[in-house]
Amino acid sequence: MNTATETRTVVIEREIPQPAAKIWKALTTSHLISEWLMNNDFHPEVGHRFKLRGEWGGVLDCEVLEIDPERSLSYSWDHDNDDPLYALRSVVTYTLTPTATGTHLRVEQSGFRPEQKQAYGGAHAGWKGFLAKLEGVVGAEG
Amino acid sequence: MNTATETRTVVIEREIPQPAAKIWKALTTSHLISEWLMNNDFHPEVGHRFKLRGEWGGVLDCEVLEIDPERSLSYSWDHDNDDPLYALRSVVTYTLTPTATGTHLRVEQSGFRPEQKQAYGGAHAGWKGFLAKLEGVVGAEG
Repeated sequence: MNTATETRTVVIEREIPQPAAKIWKALTTSHLISEWLMNNDFHPEVGHRFKLRGEWGGVLDCEVLEIDPERSLSYSWDHDNDDPLYALRSVVTYTLTPTATGTHLRVEQSGFRPEQKQAYGGAHAGWKGFLAKLEGVVGAEG
Repeated sequence: MNTATETRTVVIEREIPQPAAKIWKALTTSHLISEWLMNNDFHPEVGHRFKLRGEWGGVLDCEVLEIDPERSLSYSWDHDNDDPLYALRSVVTYTLTPTATGTHLRVEQSGFRPEQKQAYGGAHAGWKGFLAKLEGVVGAEG
């Protein structure tokens, strides 16, 4: 029995009528990321540490873990808090798969502990909003 | 000379064509706060500690500092981060003043250190968005 490692994962999937190359650009270009996700100092290089900054003063600590151009991107998505219920150690992975009409995008955020029900539910709602904005950014880019 | 205490303050003001009582309700009722600001366990009692939770896993640590019903509300708005550039110790104060056509709302967030330029700029943009949503919530409530 090893309940200490039990975590929950949020998965959101979307069909986007755009080529994978355009979505990849929006996922990996700092000024575009700021339009659909948060302000950031992202750079597409494994090992690069960066921050995602909410407008209200909140901050996520991140590190690029894996890059497979136009196919998948993975980074850590951590949040400091003295209260363990709110401290978060998670990993976000984007996976792109070409389809007949565009691209299938899968976003996974793993690492929610069972007691972090609110953070888990919030992330589900948060990603829906982020991805709706992402689609707008991808559609607007020439 | 005492540069250690120098901080910057964000101030946003709006004229809202609604009575102060309705705005006060939206500022101090947990389920309404969650509609325009963030998920929370706010309770209108001086000394009450609560969290504001971003959908993406970020958290603010808050404590109610002052309540003057239908006139002013003040709470701390802190954010933990190992990097001092991102750790925030601030105070948010809402002040309501009746006018001929409704209510003048002033929101002040104080405590940004001079080097926290990005958090300061972000808060300015953030409050504009929050208050636009607040007006919607106040207008929708009967």
